[in-house]
Amino acid sequence: MSARQRINKIYSQMKKQAIDSLLISLPANIAYLTTYPSRDSWLLLAKGKNIYITDSRYAAEAKNSLSRIFSIRQAGAALTETLASLAKELGIKKLGIEQKHISAYAYQKMACGLTGIAEVIPVIDIVEPLREIKSPQEIEKIKKATRIASAALRFIKRHIAAGAKEIEIAGEIERFIRHKGAEGPSFDIIVASGPNSSYPHHKTSHRKIAKNDLVLIDMGVEYCGYKSDLTRVFFLGKINPLVRKVYDIVAEAQKVAIKSIKPGIMTNEVDMAARQYIAGKGYGGLFSHSLGHGVGLEIHESPRLSPRENRRIRKGMVFTIEPAIYIPGEFGIRIEDMVVVTQKGVKVLSGSLNK
Amino acid sequence: MSARQRINKIYSQMKKQAIDSLLISLPANIAYLTTYPSRDSWLLLAKGKNIYITDSRYAAEAKNSLSRIFSIRQAGAALTETLASLAKELGIKKLGIEQKHISAYAYQKMACGLTGIAEVIPVIDIVEPLREIKSPQEIEKIKKATRIASAALRFIKRHIAAGAKEIEIAGEIERFIRHKGAEGPSFDIIVASGPNSSYPHHKTSHRKIAKNDLVLIDMGVEYCGYKSDLTRVFFLGKINPLVRKVYDIVAEAQKVAIKSIKPGIMTNEVDMAARQYIAGKGYGGLFSHSLGHGVGLEIHESPRLSPRENRRIRKGMVFTIEPAIYIPGEFGIRIEDMVVVTQKGVKVLSGSLNK
Repeated sequence: MSARQRINKIYSQMKKQAIDSLLISLPANIAYLTTYPSRDSWLLLAKGKNIYITDSRYAAEAKNSLSRIFSIRQAGAALTETLASLAKELGIKKLGIEQKHISAYAYQKMACGLTGIAEVIPVIDIVEPLREIKSPQEIEKIKKATRIASAALRFIKRHIAAGAKEIEIAGEIERFIRHKGAEGPSFDIIVASGPNSSYPHHKTSHRKIAKNDLVLIDMGVEYCGYKSDLTRVFFLGKINPLVRKVYDIVAEAQKVAIKSIKPGIMTNEVDMAARQYIAGKGYGGLFSHSLGHGVGLEIHESPRLSPRENRRIRKGMVFTIEPAIYIPGEFGIRIEDMVVVTQKGVKVLSGSLNK
Repeated sequence: MSARQRINKIYSQMKKQAIDSLLISLPANIAYLTTYPSRDSWLLLAKGKNIYITDSRYAAEAKNSLSRIFSIRQAGAALTETLASLAKELGIKKLGIEQKHISAYAYQKMACGLTGIAEVIPVIDIVEPLREIKSPQEIEKIKKATRIASAALRFIKRHIAAGAKEIEIAGEIERFIRHKGAEGPSFDIIVASGPNSSYPHHKTSHRKIAKNDLVLIDMGVEYCGYKSDLTRVFFLGKINPLVRKVYDIVAEAQKVAIKSIKPGIMTNEVDMAARQYIAGKGYGGLFSHSLGHGVGLEIHESPRLSPRENRRIRKGMVFTIEPAIYIPGEFGIRIEDMVVVTQKGVKVLSGSLNK
């Protein structure tokens, strides 16, 4: 879909919600609608005018990159004043604001600043549902991001050795992915060695990897704005029997979950498939987070695969499947792949990467 | 200051604002008060109870790391319900919320969820003013972060060559800083070559550096949660006379600004010192952003040095001084150092790094 097609879909939504204008503030939503990686900007859609509001640092770059359907307005710090002027110029009466993506402070300031000019109306999830279903072009970008991450995990295997620090391993990965064309990591790379792996979201530390450690690496890259997210566990030396057993359970739970996916089933059914398998093996309490999350322009986006969310899975959705078991203070195993939902089932995007 | 001393200062502030409890949501504010790098957490201060609210992914790690003056409560997604229970348990009646650091959506949800239990009261800038003045221990961490960034800029000089891509240069820097003990970059490293340097905040691209380019690098690192931020311009081959002239003006503007700093003067006076120097040389319209910003647990924090902000400069403040001139479509020069305000003037933290 072109920027124009995406914008037109939003105008239809706006009509349904009886607003004559919409201020978009979430960077990923702006990036989606403009097909341009937005930073420190706002997008105002109003009566067919599509106004990209930014400050002096970005105006020249945006002008060179944005499609001609957008005009650019420099605002600096004074966003409310800029909005008030635009509302008068364009005759805006009902301005929708992304309530989830603006601070309570900024919302109040805007509502006050527009008093007597336009009514401010909170809206939620107006762009996000569109972003759930990826187009073939978007899937290509996500595939490329996944390929670079897979290559990084293959590459790093050779660098993991007793004595290396976790942060050094992260540094090697960062260098590698940039040389492979990634714009950068899609989130802070997690390198969790030995007992650190028992923390689901360990902060990569100065700890030196020890002999016979396991090393869990959770990483992804950004490519043309699109993200990837993969986790693998590497073993130094001999694998202890409990670790092996837990590893096999997590790997099997992932297979069970992946097999259950097809268009039409609910996100919590997929989560339950993995969760029940792990519980059946006696480790129920130790899989303490949800099974997966959508990935695209944001590293965590809709749909979420958790016991609490029942959203229908549809063709073109892209999400992670990452079952795990954490033995407190001892070790943790998480295996994470990315899948895209197809007509009949699912394709594992990181399929060629050994587990 | 210990976590306990910092928390006590906040309790005094709360008393002044007539609230019996405060929910802190900005990660940097939580990190400051707990002296622990917080992620996906909330901190509730209420009647001497200091409750760190997080989810299952972080609970074990937080328990091992937080001072004993904090207790931990797991909340998962249901923050409002957790708050409602805590409000009942502790008899909370007036709950302050950081209005700038919570979404309009979450604020409304909390206000509704606490109806009949406690009143929700918006507060602003309750922790931030404390964070403006750095303690000697904080300055040591910032110094270390600055030393690593300086070393990275010295190191990368040898790697900048025609044919290398901007993102590859960024990758080399990332690897280097991790090996030097940084937790990571403090923001997306900017490598802007040739005409890309004319964009004040260029997004590092696949562009290959050309013969006779200039290359602007803006980068910093995180060390124990504290950030650094430096910019240098490197030249390949012969420097054209206009570039040399602009460079000298920017370097001199920085000197003029740094000389003007001492406790008691206002932030906009410092900004004006550099701005007027540049304007006097005929490049007034081409220095399009503010002169500097505070750096600490956040990469941009108070105080801001801009024409619009008149905050009094005090001993212990740490901020950047980064004058610039951008010739649209041609090239840009920005030179950025970090300074700490002393009793009588200022110390340049990156002083040993050549310009």
